[in-house]
Amino acid sequence: MPFRASAPLTGEWEHFDFAVDDGVATVRLNRPEKYNPLTFDSYADLRDLLHELPQRGDVRVLLILGEGKAFCAGGDVNEIIGELIRMDARDLMAFTKMTGDVIKAMRECPIPIVAGIQGVAAGAGAVVALASDFRIVSQSGRFAFLFTKVGLSGGDMGAAYLLPRVVGAGRATQMLMLGDTVDAATAERYGLVSELVADDELDEACSRLTRRLADGPTLAYAQTKSLVTREMDMPLGAAMELDAMTQALLMTTHDHAEFHAAFTEKRDPRWTGR
Amino acid sequence: MPFRASAPLTGEWEHFDFAVDDGVATVRLNRPEKYNPLTFDSYADLRDLLHELPQRGDVRVLLILGEGKAFCAGGDVNEIIGELIRMDARDLMAFTKMTGDVIKAMRECPIPIVAGIQGVAAGAGAVVALASDFRIVSQSGRFAFLFTKVGLSGGDMGAAYLLPRVVGAGRATQMLMLGDTVDAATAERYGLVSELVADDELDEACSRLTRRLADGPTLAYAQTKSLVTREMDMPLGAAMELDAMTQALLMTTHDHAEFHAAFTEKRDPRWTGR
Amino acid sequence: MPFRASAPLTGEWEHFDFAVDDGVATVRLNRPEKYNPLTFDSYADLRDLLHELPQRGDVRVLLILGEGKAFCAGGDVNEIIGELIRMDARDLMAFTKMTGDVIKAMRECPIPIVAGIQGVAAGAGAVVALASDFRIVSQSGRFAFLFTKVGLSGGDMGAAYLLPRVVGAGRATQMLMLGDTVDAATAERYGLVSELVADDELDEACSRLTRRLADGPTLAYAQTKSLVTREMDMPLGAAMELDAMTQALLMTTHDHAEFHAAFTEKRDPRWTGR
Repeated sequence: MPFRASAPLTGEWEHFDFAVDDGVATVRLNRPEKYNPLTFDSYADLRDLLHELPQRGDVRVLLILGEGKAFCAGGDVNEIIGELIRMDARDLMAFTKMTGDVIKAMRECPIPIVAGIQGVAAGAGAVVALASDFRIVSQSGRFAFLFTKVGLSGGDMGAAYLLPRVVGAGRATQMLMLGDTVDAATAERYGLVSELVADDELDEACSRLTRRLADGPTLAYAQTKSLVTREMDMPLGAAMELDAMTQALLMTTHDHAEFHAAFTEKRDPRWTGR
Repeated sequence: MPFRASAPLTGEWEHFDFAVDDGVATVRLNRPEKYNPLTFDSYADLRDLLHELPQRGDVRVLLILGEGKAFCAGGDVNEIIGELIRMDARDLMAFTKMTGDVIKAMRECPIPIVAGIQGVAAGAGAVVALASDFRIVSQSGRFAFLFTKVGLSGGDMGAAYLLPRVVGAGRATQMLMLGDTVDAATAERYGLVSELVADDELDEACSRLTRRLADGPTLAYAQTKSLVTREMDMPLGAAMELDAMTQALLMTTHDHAEFHAAFTEKRDPRWTGR
Repeated sequence: MPFRASAPLTGEWEHFDFAVDDGVATVRLNRPEKYNPLTFDSYADLRDLLHELPQRGDVRVLLILGEGKAFCAGGDVNEIIGELIRMDARDLMAFTKMTGDVIKAMRECPIPIVAGIQGVAAGAGAVVALASDFRIVSQSGRFAFLFTKVGLSGGDMGAAYLLPRVVGAGRATQMLMLGDTVDAATAERYGLVSELVADDELDEACSRLTRRLADGPTLAYAQTKSLVTREMDMPLGAAMELDAMTQALLMTTHDHAEFHAAFTEKRDPRWTGR
């Protein structure tokens, strides 16, 4: 079990549906009538959940979904923007730091994150999708980094860092500066989609991938995510050294020995994440 | 008006056509009979213009065009290369630093830059296109980073920094090391083209985009460009912090409040760039 | 001739076929019955060869090939993994550092490297392909960064640094975390393939490119590779400065003057790499 001492785990997350089933945690944004907007409270809950998840000991993959026709329309115009324009510098900074902390926690969380996307992923919703490790997108899915359309910078919550590293700086400039909607097929061509599926296959595709990630070699997946995340910010020589140390350590794990045993005995490996 | 004290603005740019119309500045390279080559003087003028543009106060977007059949064939073989092979170290260094300063100023200029490209964009012309924020390319457009073909390094004027970040390191290596011509459709597939249009639609497509950028939220566009540019060189955590500070500041602007007012009143926002 | 004093050059490479013909060095992995696996000895020989190559003075391009139906299946399960699970920390670290040193030497070698790929490039074989400057891939070619499938991190030998910079972070996460096989056409679409050819055209395509690279301006190619490699780890301003210094130096070379002479005399340039 992970290190955790006095601090209790949160008993109930009030601002989205949350469930854990056999290693798969699911967050479902649950205000479909408003296209699942993010609110001050749901941002805070996401941030705190992401910090707790690795310490629960029962979660090996996180799936993020939206209920109804949309994934997530971002911050609600009335509930968020209406409030922001009345805030002073201290509160604005606290807000933008909190939203950035959600994305930073997604990238630094050692658990793979899958976003299952139908309909619109807009504003902060597009950035949550972008910061996930996998984006399974149905034909109805679409992305809109629409920040300039509300008079704000396209670089919200790390989008100006992340998007150029996923789709290249030319396409990222276009998407972030103009804020136009990009459909699923175009996003796939740009490299923003991990798997493009029919609308009625989204649930099954999400289940298949999350099951696979939950059943696989947990530590190997966690370190793959960590290395991809950290080596974006490292020079070649340092990245090589981090790879070498990580791999030497993983070569001492039960899972690596289990692969060899299973291979020799011509059977499937039984991963334990150790 | 931007800060400017004793230094005068340049009255006339002698080495390209220059005009400002309702927020849109246009640079048109104007030696079509030689495919609009860059010369010692036009490099110097471009560098100085880019430093003056943000201080003029009347320009919100820059459009770069070539006259006639080509965008820009780069440095002229006789006027530039013929001179370079007679220069000593001090003058060569002054020349390569100046050309790099043009590209660096393009990336650091807080004004969005659109390149409208027909025919060939070769050598330094290809790098000027690459350093623009948007590349509207007609079917006749083509790119040739042909530096190795003249016995020089493919990393001219920042191309070895910029191109891998736009098209990926594999394709960039191929384009920079071999120097072959890449046509418009291929460049579009690689992510080097923002909008691919028919030859007779280039002017209209450039007008449409520059109009939109000139009419939009100027500060939001400027900071989007700045964040995309700077966060290429920043680690995740620092980029998040820069995003948070920038966005908190932009949340205090008139343009952000104007978005909310317009949304509430069901009308289009009137952006003022404040 | 390059600087080399007392240290002898290796007379014979025992763990792959090696030949030099008119500037083109060829390494051919030669255990086709096992899909050309890498072994402790062939890793060591590759590392040492890559350090010697630039000092030989007779090699201007390196071609890496596999014999038979595959390019390289990576580390052999019995010869490598069987040994690793019995090693202690010191030996594991020595091994992972050595394999990383092969890839680092490939990237830092001033000689362009071409991989000619048919059939499977898996595990370390996929990383060797990835670290090459050019990947000529036949229709039968396929890539599998299968490290998590053996319980290890996907970031083996620099893959977590290199692959996101070639195909973008989204596709790289998918390829490295899941370890699934990607076919030639998909890899081409992702930007991982320099040239996609029919199975019976691989040899000819490799010859054509290596001939061109061997006959071209050696110093210009070397510095293009160096700048693409180094500027991944450099901020914009420093990259501009490196470009400016490099280009000013190359403007003093015989090859640059030769281009101008040939252009003036309307003939092909005769490159000497000086």
